[in-house]
Amino acid sequence: MKEAATETESRQVVEVNEGILSKNDVFAARNRSLFNATGLLVLNVLSSPGSGKTAFIERTLTDLRGRLRGAVIVGDLATDNDAKRIARSGAPAVQITTGDMCHLEAEMVGKAAGQLNLDDLDVLIIENVGNLVCPSGYDLGENLRVVLLAATEGEDKPLKYPVMFKTADVVIVNKMDIAEAAGFDRATALDNIRRIAPQAVIFEVSARTGQGMQQWYDWLEQRRAQM
Amino acid sequence: MKEAATETESRQVVEVNEGILSKNDVFAARNRSLFNATGLLVLNVLSSPGSGKTAFIERTLTDLRGRLRGAVIVGDLATDNDAKRIARSGAPAVQITTGDMCHLEAEMVGKAAGQLNLDDLDVLIIENVGNLVCPSGYDLGENLRVVLLAATEGEDKPLKYPVMFKTADVVIVNKMDIAEAAGFDRATALDNIRRIAPQAVIFEVSARTGQGMQQWYDWLEQRRAQM
Repeated sequence: MKEAATETESRQVVEVNEGILSKNDVFAARNRSLFNATGLLVLNVLSSPGSGKTAFIERTLTDLRGRLRGAVIVGDLATDNDAKRIARSGAPAVQITTGDMCHLEAEMVGKAAGQLNLDDLDVLIIENVGNLVCPSGYDLGENLRVVLLAATEGEDKPLKYPVMFKTADVVIVNKMDIAEAAGFDRATALDNIRRIAPQAVIFEVSARTGQGMQQWYDWLEQRRAQM
Repeated sequence: MKEAATETESRQVVEVNEGILSKNDVFAARNRSLFNATGLLVLNVLSSPGSGKTAFIERTLTDLRGRLRGAVIVGDLATDNDAKRIARSGAPAVQITTGDMCHLEAEMVGKAAGQLNLDDLDVLIIENVGNLVCPSGYDLGENLRVVLLAATEGEDKPLKYPVMFKTADVVIVNKMDIAEAAGFDRATALDNIRRIAPQAVIFEVSARTGQGMQQWYDWLEQRRAQM
């Protein structure tokens, strides 16, 4: 069983990589023109599984209701739990199920965006598959890459997953409400982020308690206003 | 910059997958014969980044010193921090740096094992790259797949990453000391694990405080005794 699964999975990976890779950039460029034409601010939200991407997006859209009109495209290997969770914020959510693919591609995002009324939106948030490696090489046509790191994951992650953090425009340090309980070394973590991602704006938040979220909202609204 | 990085990375992935995939099984079988011949119990430890693999392995080898002779092979994209941390337990540790590859392969493990004196060991622990997707398809020649899930990651992870959990012989729920603070829904988590991985033995532990680790040690020693 294990071997069979391996072979099928791998053959698919090969086909996808061979055929689509330069194609991904074409689709990303196509997405970008579409998004720009409608004045949308588009975020690609990336992290390890369980860093709190969904909770972060859900809270952002709930708290900004009436101020920013948002929608979400969610990528997952299996289940549509996240789209259901996000729908509670009142924002439209489209789920992409990727099967064994550990990242979203621009073409999938373009198709999912076709199910949304983009003219009625200010912000489109793409929640990528939980993975600190695979999605880093795939441009989806976004304006900003937002990389989440949960305080509970430890301060060394930017050093161990440099490619992901190097491409971040924003780094969100989430779960700060339980950082102390987790023995999180905040100073070292911030040093590591600044060393690998000197370009990134950093926010320290808890999507659960709401701490630190206001600064993120102010910054996001400002970015949207500049479009 | 982003586009260039994408192309290089992807081309490498294609070459690796095309060339090595059936080869991986050959190398895995070769590892397995070597490990069996020396009576070693070999674990492949897998999880998302930041679930506490290194702390779990470090504590296991420290606490079992004098009872089980262990060594570790550690895979990471970048840095040799983990091998250094594990070396504190007194166990030999060999670091494999994978660059942009999000999993270990059997051939790399075979080479790393060549740097260890296998006849002097009871247990070989392979710490895979932190990723809940890529490593699942690669047999390394291990006896047991040990999948870690941190309580802080949430109870839905087995449903969202089914391929990884389906192949687990053991599921370790780690960071139980801060499970309550993280709002972890233990009953749902255990249900989800049993649903996706009915074959797996489950241990609920904290590698930091040591809670629950004794049951894991007893089980591990028993498994080693059966070799």
